[in-house]
Amino acid sequence: MTIVLQSEDIKKCVELNEQLIPVIEDAFKNLAQGKTTMPPILRLDIEKYHGESDVKAAYIEGLDSYAIKIASGFFNNPKLGIPSSNGLMILLDSQTGVIKSVLLDKGYLTDVRTAIAGAIASKYLSNYDSTKAGIIGAGIQAKLQLEALTLVRKINTAYIWSRDSTKTKKFVEEINNLNVNLEVCSSAEEVLRKSEIVVTTTPSKSPLIKSDWLKKGLHITAMGSDAEQKNELDPLIIKQCDLYVPDSLSQTTILGELHHALEKNIVSSDNTYDELGNVILDSNLGRKSKDDITICDLTGTGVQDTAIARYTFNLALKKKLGIEV
Amino acid sequence: MTIVLQSEDIKKCVELNEQLIPVIEDAFKNLAQGKTTMPPILRLDIEKYHGESDVKAAYIEGLDSYAIKIASGFFNNPKLGIPSSNGLMILLDSQTGVIKSVLLDKGYLTDVRTAIAGAIASKYLSNYDSTKAGIIGAGIQAKLQLEALTLVRKINTAYIWSRDSTKTKKFVEEINNLNVNLEVCSSAEEVLRKSEIVVTTTPSKSPLIKSDWLKKGLHITAMGSDAEQKNELDPLIIKQCDLYVPDSLSQTTILGELHHALEKNIVSSDNTYDELGNVILDSNLGRKSKDDITICDLTGTGVQDTAIARYTFNLALKKKLGIEV
Repeated sequence: MTIVLQSEDIKKCVELNEQLIPVIEDAFKNLAQGKTTMPPILRLDIEKYHGESDVKAAYIEGLDSYAIKIASGFFNNPKLGIPSSNGLMILLDSQTGVIKSVLLDKGYLTDVRTAIAGAIASKYLSNYDSTKAGIIGAGIQAKLQLEALTLVRKINTAYIWSRDSTKTKKFVEEINNLNVNLEVCSSAEEVLRKSEIVVTTTPSKSPLIKSDWLKKGLHITAMGSDAEQKNELDPLIIKQCDLYVPDSLSQTTILGELHHALEKNIVSSDNTYDELGNVILDSNLGRKSKDDITICDLTGTGVQDTAIARYTFNLALKKKLGIEV
Repeated sequence: MTIVLQSEDIKKCVELNEQLIPVIEDAFKNLAQGKTTMPPILRLDIEKYHGESDVKAAYIEGLDSYAIKIASGFFNNPKLGIPSSNGLMILLDSQTGVIKSVLLDKGYLTDVRTAIAGAIASKYLSNYDSTKAGIIGAGIQAKLQLEALTLVRKINTAYIWSRDSTKTKKFVEEINNLNVNLEVCSSAEEVLRKSEIVVTTTPSKSPLIKSDWLKKGLHITAMGSDAEQKNELDPLIIKQCDLYVPDSLSQTTILGELHHALEKNIVSSDNTYDELGNVILDSNLGRKSKDDITICDLTGTGVQDTAIARYTFNLALKKKLGIEV
């Protein structure tokens, strides 16, 4: 028996809130401890339509189910009046491979688990008393990352910039559920200058943040770079920061911000870095002083998908949601 | 709107018959002509339970949809009384990534498209007047490959051998829908000696067929090797045969029989080989004489999945099958 969960069912089970933080933290801890099997991402590009489908999968030892996730981005869709993101998750029985559930979330769970990862990055790496957030980008993740940040830090002002000023303005107008002052900036540099925590949420293919703009105590979460060609930070930043933390080192060496620094020989491929899960497990591996500059490089991992798919499925069972097929 | 097709719906649309041959031939032709985007297979192993999930995907240029397929094999399942194979296919809109259909086929469509690929291999590579088939293995593909073979050649006798003689006997007893004499052999060598076409359908990790057993005019389709460690043919066979044809050269260099011959330096990695799709497009690339020894190496391709998922979905629409969600 397979339970098909539709988007509405899923939204009844999962909201962006603090309950998800330990769920995703556990996933990162398992990843860092090597208690997972997480193969390289499968990516299918459909260049003609400016589209791509990514497939991620991860098995976490000891858990009775694992997820395989399809996430698509078709960047001409907004012109057609439909969202660019789409996708679903499949939950399988770890012992038999039987399909327990098809979660037709249209990308919602990916959006949420990505935002929660951003919150976790700032929770463990930014200065505790940070109140000023900077958001680069004005898409769905820009909104969700800011919202998630308020779960872990007392943000009172957010500084926003994106390349499209109309979109930025609209973005600011649409945020009305957060008790945060919003200030549109005229440049990414201005955002950097004013913020203590910066989250980059763009699909940029060339750096938006220059290394010259770094300042003491800054934390940056770069979450846009989930493909080889994507790049939000000047690669020099990886060398100049005090602490670089990837979500998954095996992924950031080929997809993330680190990958560009390696390619340009700015950092050595012999360097090793503790992953976000290591920092969660041992706070001594995190920020050492108030002045440290810390970077978290998020590419999105299959363990997050497995964690949120399991969480959603269990709640749906309790609420008796979904269609049995 | 997504249409969920259950196993019973799918079986109402698709049977193993000659109508599928041009559908899968077209897929191979597109692959050979470079009209496809087919990323490397994602494989997740769950060693604890002797299980694996493979994900395949392919976009065929010009088609309005593409499939992503999950196929799982959990080899302890028979002890639990459930089939080892499972899976589903997802059909997505090529222009938008919107999920058109979830095909909960439990691996049925994979079984069928794999058998049809075997038929196509023999159709283009074996001697036209072959009547004697050899089947190595006694699982579901052993049965389906034999059945598929009867679609393209007038098989009157099939010689069967598998490592498990009880299973072989049961296999022969259960085949009652084919007008073919079945003869259980005492060794793989006996099968080779008696057959004109041999299909290997096992998950063997060491060669079952020795190069010494090759004989003039023989055609072998090796379809069991779909993972690095799997290997059905003595790698010398790849060198000694007159014609080696892979389904997808990019896959057989890392997964198929060819991969073992490359690893042992029996054939040079500089060699190139026409794919099955090339042979379908140009019969001059196939068998040159009645005495040629031909080998087809099938690893299973995403283009076959896209082809059969589209075919099934279109028939289901006509028959108004499935649940709209």
